[in-house]
Amino acid sequence: MHFEKPVPVTTIAQMIGATLIGNKDGMVTGINEIHKVEPGDLAFVDHPKYYDTCIKSAASFIIINKAADVPEGKALLVVDDPFEAYLKIVQFYRPFIPSTKLISDTAAIGEGTVLMPGAFVGHHVSIGKNCLIHPHVTILDYCIIGDDVVIQAGTVIGSDAFYYNKKTNREIHYRKMTSCGRVVIGNAVEIGANCSIDRGVSADTIIGDGTKMDNLVHIGHDTVVGKNCLFAGQVGIAGATTIEDNVILWGQVGVSKTLTIGKDAVIYAQSGVKDSIPGGKVYFGSPVEDAREKMKEFVWIKRIPLLWEKVMGK
Amino acid sequence: MHFEKPVPVTTIAQMIGATLIGNKDGMVTGINEIHKVEPGDLAFVDHPKYYDTCIKSAASFIIINKAADVPEGKALLVVDDPFEAYLKIVQFYRPFIPSTKLISDTAAIGEGTVLMPGAFVGHHVSIGKNCLIHPHVTILDYCIIGDDVVIQAGTVIGSDAFYYNKKTNREIHYRKMTSCGRVVIGNAVEIGANCSIDRGVSADTIIGDGTKMDNLVHIGHDTVVGKNCLFAGQVGIAGATTIEDNVILWGQVGVSKTLTIGKDAVIYAQSGVKDSIPGGKVYFGSPVEDAREKMKEFVWIKRIPLLWEKVMGK
Amino acid sequence: MHFEKPVPVTTIAQMIGATLIGNKDGMVTGINEIHKVEPGDLAFVDHPKYYDTCIKSAASFIIINKAADVPEGKALLVVDDPFEAYLKIVQFYRPFIPSTKLISDTAAIGEGTVLMPGAFVGHHVSIGKNCLIHPHVTILDYCIIGDDVVIQAGTVIGSDAFYYNKKTNREIHYRKMTSCGRVVIGNAVEIGANCSIDRGVSADTIIGDGTKMDNLVHIGHDTVVGKNCLFAGQVGIAGATTIEDNVILWGQVGVSKTLTIGKDAVIYAQSGVKDSIPGGKVYFGSPVEDAREKMKEFVWIKRIPLLWEKVMGK
Repeated sequence: MHFEKPVPVTTIAQMIGATLIGNKDGMVTGINEIHKVEPGDLAFVDHPKYYDTCIKSAASFIIINKAADVPEGKALLVVDDPFEAYLKIVQFYRPFIPSTKLISDTAAIGEGTVLMPGAFVGHHVSIGKNCLIHPHVTILDYCIIGDDVVIQAGTVIGSDAFYYNKKTNREIHYRKMTSCGRVVIGNAVEIGANCSIDRGVSADTIIGDGTKMDNLVHIGHDTVVGKNCLFAGQVGIAGATTIEDNVILWGQVGVSKTLTIGKDAVIYAQSGVKDSIPGGKVYFGSPVEDAREKMKEFVWIKRIPLLWEKVMGK
Repeated sequence: MHFEKPVPVTTIAQMIGATLIGNKDGMVTGINEIHKVEPGDLAFVDHPKYYDTCIKSAASFIIINKAADVPEGKALLVVDDPFEAYLKIVQFYRPFIPSTKLISDTAAIGEGTVLMPGAFVGHHVSIGKNCLIHPHVTILDYCIIGDDVVIQAGTVIGSDAFYYNKKTNREIHYRKMTSCGRVVIGNAVEIGANCSIDRGVSADTIIGDGTKMDNLVHIGHDTVVGKNCLFAGQVGIAGATTIEDNVILWGQVGVSKTLTIGKDAVIYAQSGVKDSIPGGKVYFGSPVEDAREKMKEFVWIKRIPLLWEKVMGK
Repeated sequence: MHFEKPVPVTTIAQMIGATLIGNKDGMVTGINEIHKVEPGDLAFVDHPKYYDTCIKSAASFIIINKAADVPEGKALLVVDDPFEAYLKIVQFYRPFIPSTKLISDTAAIGEGTVLMPGAFVGHHVSIGKNCLIHPHVTILDYCIIGDDVVIQAGTVIGSDAFYYNKKTNREIHYRKMTSCGRVVIGNAVEIGANCSIDRGVSADTIIGDGTKMDNLVHIGHDTVVGKNCLFAGQVGIAGATTIEDNVILWGQVGVSKTLTIGKDAVIYAQSGVKDSIPGGKVYFGSPVEDAREKMKEFVWIKRIPLLWEKVMGK
């Protein structure tokens, strides 16, 4: 999330009661989680294992629970509980004000766009021209929809990220990281019925122009989908993953988090993608392999009894 | 889709600016895609690979992008872009007029049927007697629901087919084939929460009497499901497939397109059906095999280390 | 389901026209199906195969279609069709009165709880304090929601159990067992978008404090989920299963019915759990095995060609 205008780091430090180390003159331009961080951003870290990664990331400002060396030009904001400090900042700069109307007065709806009965459009949503939003679609605050988009009935755009801070010493182990990112949907995208596309934790979940999805598809937070992709029914993609252009995922394919599927890849039905895979190829299996190799493997398995008989006797 | 009354082929030819070859006196009774075509129907073909199949199909009238020999009694309608011509005809004879009310005035609702708050019922929908339609169910235009049907909350009946015309020379590769088919649901059918059943592209998606589905089930366009079937949670069935009577699909089973599952077949959870399979048997695996054979295979795989030791030594 | 106050067994016998055998002075405290039965409960059995199990269960009163020996203190209620008798009792003591409003007047909503536009809250629902119920959520009759609960858009709480009485000699083979149980959700539970949680057939589906679910998750009837569990997107759990505390199910995991997953178990994505498994371990596969063993198996399979060459020659 970018702030509406840059905020002095001293203002942030004061808000969260932090001790400021390093560059006290910096201006914070936004807030981000570690996978999506950019220069000018504020990030947070609360575990020694990740101190170094976070301090050396693109983030200019780091909320941390222990003083440490800080690179030239950056600043550390030292507090007891960085996660709670982060939440406080998010909730101040992006407060959640639940809409009381089906269509918020602050939503911008383009010419020729049809909202069918029961469609919900939250605050500061922007929908382009000539879209068709079916009954009972939910488009939550701050999401951006392009032109010529079709969203079928019951689909939810901008649900919160499934992203928690875990501490097993609390009675409730998981504390939600408030999502302040958006979903940004390109032109000529079509989304089936009863899908869900989560917003970014602090950055954007992006669906590229011309991509089409069937029903009951799930897209996780911060995932970036390219142009002209096809996702069949019940496909599920976890968070912060990149799907390049023209990728085809057949029915019930599952894709894990923070990986990349290369351009023009095709994944057969029910496959599971757990690591990055190059484009231009056809894959199958859970976990996926080259589809032809996987098919051969099925044949090899059928030959075990013959092998057994030869070696062990009848 | 059947037209309300037969239309002279010359009228259609004029509408789409086609050169007419063959029988100029024919009456067109409807429009259909190739998997569902019947005599009297108009179909379209735009790739030389499928010219022959389409011309020799049951279709009486073929929109095509090249002149060709035409069988006795049939007619070709030659245009530059058959797909766009097809869309024009569909949109003329089945125009989409988005409803502005939750319950359309043109819907017919049978005696004793309860529509709970938030249920959407589109134009020309027919619902039989003694049905229970839960909150936030969406039943879209022209769908037909029998008697004694229960549809649980959030389910969508009549979402559009996931069916596109692909041309990679366009910036947006996929152009939607406008769905003009219906969903036709028999008597005593029960459908769980947050399911989606797509309408036929031009024919009907059919659910037979007494079939019961659990939650989050997806049924593709033009699929025909028999009587007294059971589909457990998160089952997904692709388009134009036939599921015969009494078939049981356990949780998360996936079924591919344009195939047939025979009567009384049982498919264990998480299996994937990629080709037609005979009825009366129990299946498991992705892709499915005879369940007992598949179970034995798991045992054989466990024996590889022993075989290895015998052949290769420790 | 517990009755509001105990009912003399003679009253029940009269209502269903049953011949009463055994203890005629008993008071019936509730009604339950066999998996969840407690002393004081009325249960039913209509197949000789299960007579003994049902009569010897915790149930104090058994509706049965044949006279039999009855243990001291219990009673049999003999009728021709126990299932229909059971339905009659359920429908008398828990009649379904469809709500005509989005928010029923009989719902109790705690302080600080926000119901967004389009949320449906049925009769006798209780929602705790400081909850956030997103647009188009459906919470059906009698469900209980704790404090600090978040339910995202389109989710359905309290859909009916997928539970049928089968008789193939009827034209419609399956007759629904009317669900009179509830869904009981603890504190600080968070549920994603477009999920579905079925109510118990006659007992409760329970979600423990602090458990978090991603989108499109399905939980079956009478399933009991512990505290601080994490279920990723598109997880599906069948009926009457027990998931103990801190269990993590990754995306698209399927869990079968009436089994137990032990505390602290972790199940990798797309796995299938068909039998009970002990806690404290990591699992993978369909059906699941110890994850490390399963990974080794993949390596063994890759070695078959080498083994073949050694034994059979090139």
